Amino acid sequence: MVRAPVAFLMDEPLSNLDAALRVHMRAELSELHRRLSATFVYVTHDQAEALTMSDRMAVMMDGRILQVGPPYAIYADPNCLEVAQFIGSPAINTLPAEIDAEGQLTVLGRRLGTFRAAPGPVTVGVRPEHLSLGASGGFVGTVRHRENLGSDLYLHLDLEGLERVLVLRTSPGASARIGDQARFSIDPDAALLFGPHGRRLYAPIVTREIA
Amino acid sequence: MVRAPVAFLMDEPLSNLDAALRVHMRAELSELHRRLSATFVYVTHDQAEALTMSDRMAVMMDGRILQVGPPYAIYADPNCLEVAQFIGSPAINTLPAEIDAEGQLTVLGRRLGTFRAAPGPVTVGVRPEHLSLGASGGFVGTVRHRENLGSDLYLHLDLEGLERVLVLRTSPGASARIGDQARFSIDPDAALLFGPHGRRLYAPIVTREIA
Repeated sequence: MVRAPVAFLMDEPLSNLDAALRVHMRAELSELHRRLSATFVYVTHDQAEALTMSDRMAVMMDGRILQVGPPYAIYADPNCLEVAQFIGSPAINTLPAEIDAEGQLTVLGRRLGTFRAAPGPVTVGVRPEHLSLGASGGFVGTVRHRENLGSDLYLHLDLEGLERVLVLRTSPGASARIGDQARFSIDPDAALLFGPHGRRLYAPIVTREIA
Repeated sequence: MVRAPVAFLMDEPLSNLDAALRVHMRAELSELHRRLSATFVYVTHDQAEALTMSDRMAVMMDGRILQVGPPYAIYADPNCLEVAQFIGSPAINTLPAEIDAEGQLTVLGRRLGTFRAAPGPVTVGVRPEHLSLGASGGFVGTVRHRENLGSDLYLHLDLEGLERVLVLRTSPGASARIGDQARFSIDPDAALLFGPHGRRLYAPIVTREIA
């Protein structure tokens, strides 16, 4: 780094390293970036790198930029279903839903709350960390698969009337076993709504139901 | 899968797939494994695969098996420092500590609790998810680096008298900024003790301090 270019271009610099070294080098490169105060343009397929190292992240698909912004905003506030599904691992859950004339959102027969949105069919996106196990939860799924990463446990749940499984994040101590019926709730504040062609519906929540 | 062998040998079958497809194929292979009821011997460098897909996991280093057991037990209950540091990403934090004649464990000048262990220097291992931000925490670190993965925020903390940074997992909403002094506590129940040569000390905890 003897020269002082206006920008550094990096093309997947960490892709051949193992997990531990990759985590270490992420921090090193971020530190270098801060020290040099130069622009880094950094191409990667690794979401963790994109999310943790960048100030601004561009999500590209088929040669088009779908969204540009601070990485956390893109994770929490994606502008379309494609971006929502691309960023985050395990991927965001998607559920068919309906908004009625009063703005009531109904998902799999249960109300999640009232939203300031036009009536019609919508897709609800909700990330695994926003589903919570609990005896009072309004939804029930059959545990088809458990993925225990040590720090987190992911339950894959089969729901009646839903083709794909839902993935729920919980703590490794949770007792749910394969075949169990698990009750869970969806955090209505964390539900993202998408309209036709996956366009994000920016629909403020008005009232919440305990579901 | 027309034949019915007694065992299937798989050598890093998913290593060339991207993140999303890898997660999907993990579930598919696990499902296949259950359906066939045959033994799979599965070699991988990917911790997530090892932890999520196996019933029994062997950790090998330099041609030696260091530990064999159910994956969650190896994450939560490693038999040596090498295994503790190898499994888990970001890696487990290690801290120099001391046990006195009464079994009091002191880490960086603060007591964590009393353990049924012989006096002497020890290494304390504590995973990022077992450090908690909080105004009442007895430890203070300077935030050197933030890694926001969307689902989790990792803070890298510089502590006085400690060469390496500590990594703490918290929720993405946490306000700690680079340069801030962050107070945090260590969960004494989650502290793993290691003795000379990284040998695990199975030292039951007797009393806990709020640190």
